[in-house]
Amino acid sequence: MTADKVSRTRLRRGANQAVHDQQLIHEIIDQNLICHVGFIADGNPVVIPTCHWRIENRLYWHSHRLGANVAPNHRSEVCITITQLDGLVLARSAFNHSVNYLSVMAFGAAVPVTDAAEKIVILERMMDKFSPERWPTLRPVTDAELQATGVSYITLDELSCKVSRGDAEDNSADIDWPVWAGVLPIYAQLGAAKPNADLHGSHSTPRPPILAGSPSSDLSDNR
Amino acid sequence: MTADKVSRTRLRRGANQAVHDQQLIHEIIDQNLICHVGFIADGNPVVIPTCHWRIENRLYWHSHRLGANVAPNHRSEVCITITQLDGLVLARSAFNHSVNYLSVMAFGAAVPVTDAAEKIVILERMMDKFSPERWPTLRPVTDAELQATGVSYITLDELSCKVSRGDAEDNSADIDWPVWAGVLPIYAQLGAAKPNADLHGSHSTPRPPILAGSPSSDLSDNR
Repeated sequence: MTADKVSRTRLRRGANQAVHDQQLIHEIIDQNLICHVGFIADGNPVVIPTCHWRIENRLYWHSHRLGANVAPNHRSEVCITITQLDGLVLARSAFNHSVNYLSVMAFGAAVPVTDAAEKIVILERMMDKFSPERWPTLRPVTDAELQATGVSYITLDELSCKVSRGDAEDNSADIDWPVWAGVLPIYAQLGAAKPNADLHGSHSTPRPPILAGSPSSDLSDNR
Repeated sequence: MTADKVSRTRLRRGANQAVHDQQLIHEIIDQNLICHVGFIADGNPVVIPTCHWRIENRLYWHSHRLGANVAPNHRSEVCITITQLDGLVLARSAFNHSVNYLSVMAFGAAVPVTDAAEKIVILERMMDKFSPERWPTLRPVTDAELQATGVSYITLDELSCKVSRGDAEDNSADIDWPVWAGVLPIYAQLGAAKPNADLHGSHSTPRPPILAGSPSSDLSDNR
């Protein structure tokens, strides 16, 4: 993966925040649960939220439930953006306010997964992200379900990663302006697992996903 | 606003989750801090994260800091999607897994705000969302800063709102499958305000935004 291979004309701006750290890029992708898939439909831009996961150098997304339209035609160009908002940055001037965030934009030609055996392996990996070790405990997938589930991917060859962290950066002349400056941190938090109303008997609660920015991925530590 | 005026061809699917509740649509927009702006650049889809805010029937977004390219040309078609992930829905079958979420997709022709007097009023409303009552305490905006700040809007005339809430919905034959089923709730949480390293003297901490799904918008209640 070459993180700097970004040829889309306008994306060269903002390079001061661009990063090319493959491990960080993978962390942003792996520790965030939803992405926004952009594609062109009937000549207009469309942006759809859906769940994504990564296997090596491929970024997969799911097109059931969150809209059947998240599966563009074979080889349609897509832009998939994953954003983690980490905080609000409050400066002394309105102009220097910003947000702390991590973001990955990945471009590519969407490839639908059509082979049933391949799809089932890929879906197991999705489950491993959302609730590790859950897959083998589930009622097995049927052929009809597999056919009704849309999975597409792009290869992570052309992407842009941006990172904004740290304090507000004010003009030196503004430092003594009499107002609070700093960061209001924001993070995703898991609540206590809520059993289905139709759940009978005792079952161990599932392992939750690893959430980016969360102080803990352990349910026992949640409020 | 007519929430059902969605003419983009493919967006009619998934209507089972579509809602037309204007108050809910406004809440989703107002209580989430970032959106994803989709537009077409050089024939390809691009999706950029940025901050948004609403004034009556207009959805505004900001094009400084998060990329100068978030300001498409005058009247460019954009799709702005705001998504709030509320939880992971774990079912007895892989197929019936889903996520609980709220999402608004708004379509329109981007209008850049060019009038300085209009822009300053609109930016004050942005600040009111991100930290209420902060604007009057800040070092006043200069003309150069105002010129360097990009603000665009679309009118909220053509949009789609989807809502997914509640328990996992399994096939009746699967209810007794011996596995936990239910929801792992996820919400955005504010951490304790973190003062800038260069902050001198005592200043009252700012009022935080109202975060969707957060148990409290009061900093004193945060961990």
